[in-house]
Amino acid sequence: MDFAYSKRVEDLRQRVSAFMDHEILPANQHWLELAERGTYPLEVVEPLKAKARSEGLWNLFLPGLKDDEPGTRLSNLEYAPIAELMGPVPWSAEVFNCNAPDTGNMEILHLFATPEQRRQWLNPLLNGEIRSVVSITEPDVASSDPTNLQTEIRRDGDSYVINGRKWFNTGALHPHAAFLLVMGVSNFDADAPRHRRHSFIIVPMDAPGVRVVRNIPIMSHYAIDGHCEVSFTEVRVPADALLGEENAGFAIAQARLGPGRIHHCMRTIGQCELALELMCHRALQRRVFGRALADFANNQDEIALSRIEIDQARLLCLRAAWRMDTDGNQAARVDVSAIKVVAARLQTRVLDRAMQMFGAMGLSNDTPLASLWSWGRALRFIDGPDEVHLRVVSRDEVAKAKLSTSQHAHHFRTSQR
Amino acid sequence: MDFAYSKRVEDLRQRVSAFMDHEILPANQHWLELAERGTYPLEVVEPLKAKARSEGLWNLFLPGLKDDEPGTRLSNLEYAPIAELMGPVPWSAEVFNCNAPDTGNMEILHLFATPEQRRQWLNPLLNGEIRSVVSITEPDVASSDPTNLQTEIRRDGDSYVINGRKWFNTGALHPHAAFLLVMGVSNFDADAPRHRRHSFIIVPMDAPGVRVVRNIPIMSHYAIDGHCEVSFTEVRVPADALLGEENAGFAIAQARLGPGRIHHCMRTIGQCELALELMCHRALQRRVFGRALADFANNQDEIALSRIEIDQARLLCLRAAWRMDTDGNQAARVDVSAIKVVAARLQTRVLDRAMQMFGAMGLSNDTPLASLWSWGRALRFIDGPDEVHLRVVSRDEVAKAKLSTSQHAHHFRTSQR
Amino acid sequence: MDFAYSKRVEDLRQRVSAFMDHEILPANQHWLELAERGTYPLEVVEPLKAKARSEGLWNLFLPGLKDDEPGTRLSNLEYAPIAELMGPVPWSAEVFNCNAPDTGNMEILHLFATPEQRRQWLNPLLNGEIRSVVSITEPDVASSDPTNLQTEIRRDGDSYVINGRKWFNTGALHPHAAFLLVMGVSNFDADAPRHRRHSFIIVPMDAPGVRVVRNIPIMSHYAIDGHCEVSFTEVRVPADALLGEENAGFAIAQARLGPGRIHHCMRTIGQCELALELMCHRALQRRVFGRALADFANNQDEIALSRIEIDQARLLCLRAAWRMDTDGNQAARVDVSAIKVVAARLQTRVLDRAMQMFGAMGLSNDTPLASLWSWGRALRFIDGPDEVHLRVVSRDEVAKAKLSTSQHAHHFRTSQR
Amino acid sequence: MDFAYSKRVEDLRQRVSAFMDHEILPANQHWLELAERGTYPLEVVEPLKAKARSEGLWNLFLPGLKDDEPGTRLSNLEYAPIAELMGPVPWSAEVFNCNAPDTGNMEILHLFATPEQRRQWLNPLLNGEIRSVVSITEPDVASSDPTNLQTEIRRDGDSYVINGRKWFNTGALHPHAAFLLVMGVSNFDADAPRHRRHSFIIVPMDAPGVRVVRNIPIMSHYAIDGHCEVSFTEVRVPADALLGEENAGFAIAQARLGPGRIHHCMRTIGQCELALELMCHRALQRRVFGRALADFANNQDEIALSRIEIDQARLLCLRAAWRMDTDGNQAARVDVSAIKVVAARLQTRVLDRAMQMFGAMGLSNDTPLASLWSWGRALRFIDGPDEVHLRVVSRDEVAKAKLSTSQHAHHFRTSQR
Repeated sequence: MDFAYSKRVEDLRQRVSAFMDHEILPANQHWLELAERGTYPLEVVEPLKAKARSEGLWNLFLPGLKDDEPGTRLSNLEYAPIAELMGPVPWSAEVFNCNAPDTGNMEILHLFATPEQRRQWLNPLLNGEIRSVVSITEPDVASSDPTNLQTEIRRDGDSYVINGRKWFNTGALHPHAAFLLVMGVSNFDADAPRHRRHSFIIVPMDAPGVRVVRNIPIMSHYAIDGHCEVSFTEVRVPADALLGEENAGFAIAQARLGPGRIHHCMRTIGQCELALELMCHRALQRRVFGRALADFANNQDEIALSRIEIDQARLLCLRAAWRMDTDGNQAARVDVSAIKVVAARLQTRVLDRAMQMFGAMGLSNDTPLASLWSWGRALRFIDGPDEVHLRVVSRDEVAKAKLSTSQHAHHFRTSQR
Repeated sequence: MDFAYSKRVEDLRQRVSAFMDHEILPANQHWLELAERGTYPLEVVEPLKAKARSEGLWNLFLPGLKDDEPGTRLSNLEYAPIAELMGPVPWSAEVFNCNAPDTGNMEILHLFATPEQRRQWLNPLLNGEIRSVVSITEPDVASSDPTNLQTEIRRDGDSYVINGRKWFNTGALHPHAAFLLVMGVSNFDADAPRHRRHSFIIVPMDAPGVRVVRNIPIMSHYAIDGHCEVSFTEVRVPADALLGEENAGFAIAQARLGPGRIHHCMRTIGQCELALELMCHRALQRRVFGRALADFANNQDEIALSRIEIDQARLLCLRAAWRMDTDGNQAARVDVSAIKVVAARLQTRVLDRAMQMFGAMGLSNDTPLASLWSWGRALRFIDGPDEVHLRVVSRDEVAKAKLSTSQHAHHFRTSQR
Repeated sequence: MDFAYSKRVEDLRQRVSAFMDHEILPANQHWLELAERGTYPLEVVEPLKAKARSEGLWNLFLPGLKDDEPGTRLSNLEYAPIAELMGPVPWSAEVFNCNAPDTGNMEILHLFATPEQRRQWLNPLLNGEIRSVVSITEPDVASSDPTNLQTEIRRDGDSYVINGRKWFNTGALHPHAAFLLVMGVSNFDADAPRHRRHSFIIVPMDAPGVRVVRNIPIMSHYAIDGHCEVSFTEVRVPADALLGEENAGFAIAQARLGPGRIHHCMRTIGQCELALELMCHRALQRRVFGRALADFANNQDEIALSRIEIDQARLLCLRAAWRMDTDGNQAARVDVSAIKVVAARLQTRVLDRAMQMFGAMGLSNDTPLASLWSWGRALRFIDGPDEVHLRVVSRDEVAKAKLSTSQHAHHFRTSQR
Repeated sequence: MDFAYSKRVEDLRQRVSAFMDHEILPANQHWLELAERGTYPLEVVEPLKAKARSEGLWNLFLPGLKDDEPGTRLSNLEYAPIAELMGPVPWSAEVFNCNAPDTGNMEILHLFATPEQRRQWLNPLLNGEIRSVVSITEPDVASSDPTNLQTEIRRDGDSYVINGRKWFNTGALHPHAAFLLVMGVSNFDADAPRHRRHSFIIVPMDAPGVRVVRNIPIMSHYAIDGHCEVSFTEVRVPADALLGEENAGFAIAQARLGPGRIHHCMRTIGQCELALELMCHRALQRRVFGRALADFANNQDEIALSRIEIDQARLLCLRAAWRMDTDGNQAARVDVSAIKVVAARLQTRVLDRAMQMFGAMGLSNDTPLASLWSWGRALRFIDGPDEVHLRVVSRDEVAKAKLSTSQHAHHFRTSQR
């Protein structure tokens, strides 16, 4: 047991941190202005991507990369402290080609794509030349249980034909968005096992019948690359657009989620660190009733609890990453659910405290706090709502209790009297 | 960074766990019955001490032991997971000679005792032949700030004469209690620095003028070895009863607190594990409105949150232990304050959930939950109240913000618009 | 709508308050000492009962009293503010003949007793000559659903024969305890409706086969009149010991609970007021780090939140009492569940804050806080656990939503876009 | 004590409720569409204003109206339940001429305006012909303590000249906005009492030097009538633009706040009722893991707690209104602080639960929840942050404890042992 980052991680943290300070932050205002005007800030992002790649800060997490593919091949445990640094400026992840949902899409393409699919879709993604979308969640069903999904994938000769409606398709408005990974029902046999009914199809953004219906705001914030509602009307793609095997969609969806969730969590924790830092500075500078805010014991408590809770969340996240590396994503499933709940709730709690410390300014866009909070609030649904993850943790805990043969609990009870 | 226990720790955990299951638990009912009748259960404890020592499970934590002193010499990080196992049966720590306040007292005797003091007091403690008391807290002042203490230590020729009143002297009613480490004012110079006014004196229990006034119950529970109020009336001891230097009491008190707090925290976390285990078993067995308690989503949430919070607390505790080992107790001071707050609050929260799952039985003494809860509640004061520790964490965080030269926070603020 | 107490209530409040200050409080230490020694303090209580009765402060709540029965006949709304005053000294309720479970027992005897039962049991209760017990809860089943109860009531010729085990029988050790109201299964027809299977029997304490097995501590506190486990072994009583109709036990149990719960809640709120008062005094007197505790903003927040939460709970309680008076106990069922949850949770929260403000002393028996807290914790089960009451409130709310014909919610949803 | 609304209030509630259902809700979509496009929806609002006024639903709260002024003259206690009904559709208050900050401005104009000021500014406001702004909060100081305000009001001959910067000027972008009530420093004598340094000036929106710098978003939401930053550069107004006496601004500001806060609170509680209603409907309709959300016990708890907390908040609010009517605004100052904290925190809590029940849709603008939440979050600052109000409540409570002559607390302490 050792709580120190490795030499390699410390070194990368320093480099990424410097990149954030010297390249990203100075460009932040420009990025925000362009986005505010409705223009995707390619002119900010593209030169920075080139610079990051030239410095070896590219595809930092993708352990399965082949020799001829660009990237840094970090383990989950190594990547987590790097991802944390990107959190405070959400758009920065794209500069390192580490942004959702592309990282998750790259992972499952790595695992399931045919050589032709790799050539056409994965390689450009690895090079940051295109962006991608993942289309899972549907408005009409509780998508936290993916077996509920209803979008139809019909085999018709050499084609698949897709009909349905998806929403919260992040990135569908990115100017480079090239394709969507669409999950839908491919097996209409009522007797089929519930987890063997869905497939994934690779659908080009420009396929006839694909329509971006609207960009859905989250807490009144419209993402510049969109959290979009997308409709699919008789969308026809060739049969080789199938990803992996037919009716194996559920397994593919599961494979996708582990590392992606951990990355989200670490970025989120980085946002909490920023909020705490801003909160402390505000507490030092602002005076009321003759004293600095930092001299009030209730503010001190908020600061202390934030520090304590952030540290605990980071440790839980790193341990989940370590378990994924050590025992595999499936074995770490409960760990990932645990940190997913913790990180999302922590973020809104710490960000809310920071907003309160800033007074009304904290709710304005004069600080990054309000827009970051909205992200944290959304994370309580992204990759599954809190309720589903708590259920996963609880069922695992109860199952362990059921199996326990030591009779420890029984022993305790009877030894009492 | 590595989250696995070392081979040595895993091995010791297995052995201590087996000892708990096969030696301690079977004796628990007997111990409780004797204590209920007001008899200190020496007949239970002494044979088990001999057995534990013969198996090498003795003085597990005391890294500074010399070659001719008995004990296992674990680091904080190694000892923490062992202490956790002892938590569920509070009296078990004595069996391994690892109980408070003796461990803390042994530590400071190690650091500050003269050879003669070692011979007379430390060696018997190391051998488990005597027990000891620490007398710091006073009823009349806020003792969380030790500079407030008022008990007088007057130099009179070759003697010190002590007058004052202390309370929450744990262990003063233990039949083997042999001495108290008494902290009091020795420097009455009004100009002396506040941290150079107090000294520690070793006072035999049977010194004339020492009187155990009463055993103070905690949440109606009277500890069999007492949390006692003790009065000191013209108690005269020879000058060589001084521990360390005169007026160095504050530094000695500080030295005492680090490892002791961590041990408390880990035992407390072990109690939470027991509570969670009992809670799960209860949830499986008890039925209401036609379903097991485990099938209700609110109970599931309580179970899941308990698991998640326990894991986070343990990680924070282990990291604090690691930092003490790596950087020293002083450097880990803020870490220790953090885990102290977390562990005490966690315990009462998790134990309360478990009590609720057991219905009214949870409040009775038919389960260990109620008495363990009382311990958790007391821990919110023992070694300093939550408020003081939060203050320590906050001041450290704000101090770091004040020193930060990167202008990171400023940068963020100005880059926003 | 009017938030002022009536003239009659203000007058009674002043008189009861004076009685508390001048009669009860001066006797409190004596009462506690006797109880600590294991003697029920009749010598304290009986003279005070005579005095209270002579002043007309007797059976303050029992609206259905007949002209020849002693008592003050207050409505729920009138009685609630009086009950609040008794809360801080739990034993004081007996002085006014207003203590649980006797008040509840008097109520259902009033409603269901035969003339002979009234003569034998109710009248002595009204005169404070005897005490009574209610035996509902059983250790082996989730008694929050009374249809689970298993104690057998077998008709055998002109007798009923009772076998079973009950616990948390409050008052069974009172020296004047004369009878128990026992609820059990009287209808063994498996096809009978679940709510038509139980009956209530009046069982004299000295009936052969009745055995007080033990006094069960609550959070290590043993009530002097006991929360007892009682076993019933072939207990035979004549057929006229049946209360009300056979198999109508469920309805009788329900009738019992409304007013009793409200009284508990108001006494509990009175305890919160005491805790807040003590907390403020402590905050003014105790100094740490050079300032009074009252000058720390976190302590200020605790005080303010306590005031705010107490006021809200009292209002909710008074409104529930008003609804019982106005619309009947059945109509106020959900209101009573609501305040039951609120009051119990509030008490432990406010008492806990007060204990924290007192430091370790708060956990000792040097203040009334620790023993009052234990009462509050028990109230989270007494008359049903929080979970059951929240379920009642929720089901009512959802049922209203289901019935809503205004389509208000639908309207809102569709008018949005 | 009586918890029923009066006949008059019940009648008005029915009429306003019908107006909301039949006039406001059908127009809501149109209003939202216009606002989304950046057009203030006068074409929706003006006809509805005429209709509301013709039905006597106009200036419902303004008890001091004279006979020749339009309005319904309700007391605070009467108006509160009416305001609650307007809460769910924030723009509806304007239809009844009951919207902030105009109501507050009308109140202080009533109290302090000269006849000419009444003619020019108050009468058009009462008739809904113009709108107004209040300019108090400043970006550079903690405005929760109004003595900090720095905007300069310099007397120069027959004029006042104003220089400074204000923000969160609600309504400054309303097309009918006609004037601002500006608070600033008018007394530069360093020895003047802190509460005798500020004045209020009536400043026409079109006065040279007044500039709306920007509309500040709150949680990414831009109000169509603006929460604006406004700069004042050498703004010159005639001396008769002074409101009330010179240097009496602090008292005027205080007078303004009581009723306004209560109205905000009641509207906020109405929003909570809407959220609860929507939550229940969602819980009935949405299914996951084979059951309706309403069948999950954790969702049931959220629903029950929301109902319980809303009811408590409403009672506290009504009591504060009652106290204002009965004892005056000054006497009710602490009550208003209490409900202010409760209402704002409740709203974000209940709204958050509702958003969570809706899944990701809850964060979108497909329901009113997200935008209402933002309002609730802002209310934690509007009219003073939580921290300031808790401080008010606490100081009052401690002051009462300090004055208590009954020695009740002392009695309790000493009677304990």
